[in-house]
Amino acid sequence: MSRNRLIYLPLGGAGEIGMNAYVYGYGPEDRERLILVDIGVTFPDMDGTPGVDLIFPDITWLKERADRLEAVFITHAHEDHVGAVAHYYEALGAPVYARAFTANIARRKMDEHGHPEDAVTTVSAWPEAVEAGPFRVSFVPVSHSIPESSALLIEAGGDRVIHTGDFKLDPSPVVGEPFDPDMWAEIAKPGVKALVCDSTNIFTPHDGRSEASVGPEIEKLVSDQKGMVVATTFASNVARVKTLAEAGERAGRSICLMGRAMRRMIEAAVETGVLTGFPKVVGPEDAQAIPRENLMLLVTGSQGERRAASAQLARGKFHGIEMKEGDTFLFSSKTIPGNEKGVIRIINQFSEMGVDVIDDSSGLYHVSGHANRPDVERLHDIVSPQMVIPMHGEHRHLREHVKVAQAKGRTGIVAVNGTMLDLSGNAPTVAEFVETGRTYLDGSVQIGALDGVVRDRIRMALNGHVIVTVILDDEDEPLGDPWCELMGLPEIGRSRAALVDVLEEDLSQFLNRAGTKTRADDNALEKELRRVVRNSAQDEIGKKPEVTVVVSRLS
Amino acid sequence: MSRNRLIYLPLGGAGEIGMNAYVYGYGPEDRERLILVDIGVTFPDMDGTPGVDLIFPDITWLKERADRLEAVFITHAHEDHVGAVAHYYEALGAPVYARAFTANIARRKMDEHGHPEDAVTTVSAWPEAVEAGPFRVSFVPVSHSIPESSALLIEAGGDRVIHTGDFKLDPSPVVGEPFDPDMWAEIAKPGVKALVCDSTNIFTPHDGRSEASVGPEIEKLVSDQKGMVVATTFASNVARVKTLAEAGERAGRSICLMGRAMRRMIEAAVETGVLTGFPKVVGPEDAQAIPRENLMLLVTGSQGERRAASAQLARGKFHGIEMKEGDTFLFSSKTIPGNEKGVIRIINQFSEMGVDVIDDSSGLYHVSGHANRPDVERLHDIVSPQMVIPMHGEHRHLREHVKVAQAKGRTGIVAVNGTMLDLSGNAPTVAEFVETGRTYLDGSVQIGALDGVVRDRIRMALNGHVIVTVILDDEDEPLGDPWCELMGLPEIGRSRAALVDVLEEDLSQFLNRAGTKTRADDNALEKELRRVVRNSAQDEIGKKPEVTVVVSRLS
Repeated sequence: MSRNRLIYLPLGGAGEIGMNAYVYGYGPEDRERLILVDIGVTFPDMDGTPGVDLIFPDITWLKERADRLEAVFITHAHEDHVGAVAHYYEALGAPVYARAFTANIARRKMDEHGHPEDAVTTVSAWPEAVEAGPFRVSFVPVSHSIPESSALLIEAGGDRVIHTGDFKLDPSPVVGEPFDPDMWAEIAKPGVKALVCDSTNIFTPHDGRSEASVGPEIEKLVSDQKGMVVATTFASNVARVKTLAEAGERAGRSICLMGRAMRRMIEAAVETGVLTGFPKVVGPEDAQAIPRENLMLLVTGSQGERRAASAQLARGKFHGIEMKEGDTFLFSSKTIPGNEKGVIRIINQFSEMGVDVIDDSSGLYHVSGHANRPDVERLHDIVSPQMVIPMHGEHRHLREHVKVAQAKGRTGIVAVNGTMLDLSGNAPTVAEFVETGRTYLDGSVQIGALDGVVRDRIRMALNGHVIVTVILDDEDEPLGDPWCELMGLPEIGRSRAALVDVLEEDLSQFLNRAGTKTRADDNALEKELRRVVRNSAQDEIGKKPEVTVVVSRLS
Repeated sequence: MSRNRLIYLPLGGAGEIGMNAYVYGYGPEDRERLILVDIGVTFPDMDGTPGVDLIFPDITWLKERADRLEAVFITHAHEDHVGAVAHYYEALGAPVYARAFTANIARRKMDEHGHPEDAVTTVSAWPEAVEAGPFRVSFVPVSHSIPESSALLIEAGGDRVIHTGDFKLDPSPVVGEPFDPDMWAEIAKPGVKALVCDSTNIFTPHDGRSEASVGPEIEKLVSDQKGMVVATTFASNVARVKTLAEAGERAGRSICLMGRAMRRMIEAAVETGVLTGFPKVVGPEDAQAIPRENLMLLVTGSQGERRAASAQLARGKFHGIEMKEGDTFLFSSKTIPGNEKGVIRIINQFSEMGVDVIDDSSGLYHVSGHANRPDVERLHDIVSPQMVIPMHGEHRHLREHVKVAQAKGRTGIVAVNGTMLDLSGNAPTVAEFVETGRTYLDGSVQIGALDGVVRDRIRMALNGHVIVTVILDDEDEPLGDPWCELMGLPEIGRSRAALVDVLEEDLSQFLNRAGTKTRADDNALEKELRRVVRNSAQDEIGKKPEVTVVVSRLS
């Protein structure tokens, strides 16, 4: 019988920012009992994933071993950590554990998918622990930009691993527990085999700033404004929403929350007791009656999302409220790379209305929820692990994080998605490479990233689409002329005639010339008709469209 | 007879960054003689303009008045100022004027389009002037991130306007003339009616930095590296390319230029005498034989463009050269909003190779070519114009620039594309709003932004495309079953059967049920078949595809 081993296998989040999913296993090789930490999503974009609704990690490896999965642990309620929990619940069939706020959000997702709410179990913070097969797992409070974020203390076979989740070291996080170095030192004291550690801000060289530092700046800003003030931040940043609301209240303004996500997050925070003392809010109907200098809206859409409250206000009236010359719009948020154009769009729309927009370029009105390099180093020092395994970050972040660990004489290794590490020895070793990737939620269907569906969409978007219809009789003679339909292509090309006419004429000429052998063979005929269209279009409009050929044979 | 008036009409670049095109006119209303300043392009993206090759300002207004156009003046050779000069040459039929380097680039474009090279006339700097109808125009040297950038002094009917083009105030620009405040003061002395002024960096509050300041930092960096050094910047930033090359040479490295755009820009700069003393370069073939610690490549692709040299090197061997662990890649450039993902992609590819990437986050290795707010204010003070007309910038930039002008008691006005201003009086007045927009170069064809071509492409990309073929006989009876082709759609939906089978079955059932009236009416039949497909797909896969229906009637 083989020895027991402790393995770590990222299926998402390692080599990218987003869709976190990390497997740990303990037991004899290939018979390890497993747990999953986080099961998140990534958001699609027009560049690479047009029409896709959500992106999931491809967890085929884990699904095939679902009988060995003891439990799923969610570190916090950001979508890139919890977003796929309901979508994968049936396939995994394992109980889900989280702290109260996270569990509340996870249960809402379960409910939307018709899964039982008791699939999610609420766990209190360390020293409470969940026994899951050979594992014993505790939730260790850390600070982040959402309530009740937790690192996990994972114990198995006498070894102890700390998986940080997303974290920062904040002595005054406004909502939730301050970072408690003494508690961390106590937890680390018996020895930590591996620190599996958030890497997203490893390139930021300066000390992190506390959530509490933005409050006075926002208060000052709000109290200086004469018109209506509208502020946006990430809806899940409950501490920030509270800070904004309190700043508004102190400036004598009524607070109105707009946008479903924001109302839901505040509701969850209140329900679970993590948020207390939130200022009284008014509904949009009542807000309309309040003089604008006495009103402050807190709205969704910090990333310029087209359907969020901020974008609606930028386009005009939203729930009866309209921004005007002299009003102020505050981004208490950073723009996530890739969202710049959407954010800039609404800033310019506000500018056209005469609304002053204040963004984060001053650095006064937003702080990051992730540990910068000095704080990562500090955590390394407090935990003093035998090895550092960087997680959650692109390759460049993981690599830099290893360098940071090595600079202090620690062992580190870059392990991207699919890299199974054996943590049993004194240093991590690569046990295996597992095939990983992405799965798309497309409408109501899950499709593989390599299925070709999205590739075909991108091709149609770049090249346009021509549909050729040909009808042949039972002697392979054309019945009438070939017919073209164009979609996403210019109407007129080089010869100043309609492109559709030119293509049909060229197809007709080809078909009249074509031998019976070609006409009798569907594949050959399709191939040739496609070639004719592509060459003819290239000549006319300088591009080769996608071509679908429909050959109908009447008999 | 009506009085003469001086008008200003931006057709591109005002209300956006990119595709600059500004009309000035002088004469009686609607009979003004016209000049055009700059004729640039904007680059398309997958989000809004998939498949498009270039975006031009829609200059229909000017084309319809081409008989009144005296000349085109190009301030500098960036694509957003000169990129459309050849595409619109025939439609405008006016002579083009530029300084030597800009003219060299413009002539290359003319040549590629088969236009005569003498369409472009080289002009020396102020006090030389071009007479163009009632206008007298001189090129006033300014600093920017490309050689021989110029403001224009535009004189007509006794009034004097300064159109800055893109500019910064650089006392030591490495290549080209330093900013000369005395010359500017002299030019301004007789009085300036309007300063039409670059707005792109108006939100940057700190003093601008000189191009010369990056040299010592780059030298230090390069001399510290042990492996090969590869640096990228904007190819047209000839000063920066020179700075990089000199830093490499001083560190004992041979310099190799890679990428067509970079070689072409250096060639143009040498040909026109603006660049002298550029270090000796080696070709890629010779570079292969040089030890990597003695080699420095200067490459195109600072924006992560897939086909540029940087992206090729990130993917593997390029012209026989491959980057390796221990090499260094330097971005001596900023990432233009919207290009973040492409840049991050290649950074991670380099990271996987073990290449250290140094970007601009330290602020040491790149400076902007545009005037920050203090420099804009300084130019306002030097020129002391009667009015400030902000140009080149999004709405938010133009609006802020007006505020900056007003703060010092000057008159300013936001005039976005299509806003014709009458500058004749003491303050600018809006004379008219002209319809403007964008035109796309798509393959070899120009299409209107509102033609629906791109809209259809985006719809296919988001929703997929179903093609339905139905054949009816002369009594409107179906010949065989309806046939579906799918493109960009999942193969299997909710019922676990092939989507194409489900759609064809539903179409078949519909067709059998359909009355003869529907079957006899092409429009009604198409509409109903489309509805069946969309509903059926919604049910199966949760999305409604684009549908093309081809009804063939045999008689």
